[in-house]
Amino acid sequence: MGKVILTMTISLDGFVAGLNPGINNPMGEGGVRLHDWIFAARTEKDTKILDQLYESSGSVIVGGHTFHNAIENVWGGASPFNVPAIVVSKTIPKEPALGFTFITEGIKSALLKARTIAGKKNVWVMGGANLIQQFIKEDIYDEIWIHIAPVLLIKGVPLFQKLGEDRIELEAYDVVQTPGATHIKYRRV
Amino acid sequence: MGKVILTMTISLDGFVAGLNPGINNPMGEGGVRLHDWIFAARTEKDTKILDQLYESSGSVIVGGHTFHNAIENVWGGASPFNVPAIVVSKTIPKEPALGFTFITEGIKSALLKARTIAGKKNVWVMGGANLIQQFIKEDIYDEIWIHIAPVLLIKGVPLFQKLGEDRIELEAYDVVQTPGATHIKYRRV
Repeated sequence: MGKVILTMTISLDGFVAGLNPGINNPMGEGGVRLHDWIFAARTEKDTKILDQLYESSGSVIVGGHTFHNAIENVWGGASPFNVPAIVVSKTIPKEPALGFTFITEGIKSALLKARTIAGKKNVWVMGGANLIQQFIKEDIYDEIWIHIAPVLLIKGVPLFQKLGEDRIELEAYDVVQTPGATHIKYRRV
Repeated sequence: MGKVILTMTISLDGFVAGLNPGINNPMGEGGVRLHDWIFAARTEKDTKILDQLYESSGSVIVGGHTFHNAIENVWGGASPFNVPAIVVSKTIPKEPALGFTFITEGIKSALLKARTIAGKKNVWVMGGANLIQQFIKEDIYDEIWIHIAPVLLIKGVPLFQKLGEDRIELEAYDVVQTPGATHIKYRRV
């Protein structure tokens, strides 16, 4: 069985998006800056990290808001993923997009489905913040890959909240510095 | 003239201390964990980073709360610093501790004094959080050295708040990974 990998890009002050993310502005006000390491400022090292993520993943889990704001209708109806994607959603669209399976029973059902598809490969949980928070709070993950963009966004959607009551120990086992992000891989201790 | 270096150790979720820091518990509830890289889990790489900080600094600025909770009476009346320390404080003690100068006129006065002492060496602003926030908000710094402990503290004293209105661009120019912390050096862009 593969691992469950949570990934998220944050500003140094912990935001995953600017204020007011929505269908016309998926990253919120000023939030597109966070993804410079994937787009505007991408280097070979960044590509290597993305490649590793794609190649090791057998399926991907996406939150309903992220799907609605950043994927549906954005990529011309196609899936941007090279593997099947599970959307944790409150409703199932009448005409589900190709490559996407909708799960309305929450993250554990989604993970079960994702694991079945992934087989020995990893399940990649790509976010948004609310989905990542649920996986951390329920303690069903193996690693967290955090990409810290070198910017203080000051305001936006925070990643680290609603995580439960007790502190969570991690081990940072790998770090890569690029102009667009400090990429840190954590595993559970 | 040297640089102004802000330093702070934070949890991955951005706390500089646990809840309720005070004179009997300077790092707050569970907060001592953050400084494992300096004490319990210190490695040669961590020592090198501390040495570099000490050797490059000609003076240090400390906040009044940090002085009161973590320095005064903790180190047997002596200064833990190898250089003169400026305390940004609301009051001046009747018998100031040796090695400490108290400034009641705010951070700009403190910096002026610290620069005079430091000469060509750097001024090290060691915190606490409130002091670091003031330097960032007033835009009087050259670098921020962040030490991220691999732990989600969940609750505590946050570093990144009260920083003003506009996003702040940084450049991460150096990173060192040790078991106790991911050490990232940022400079202003």
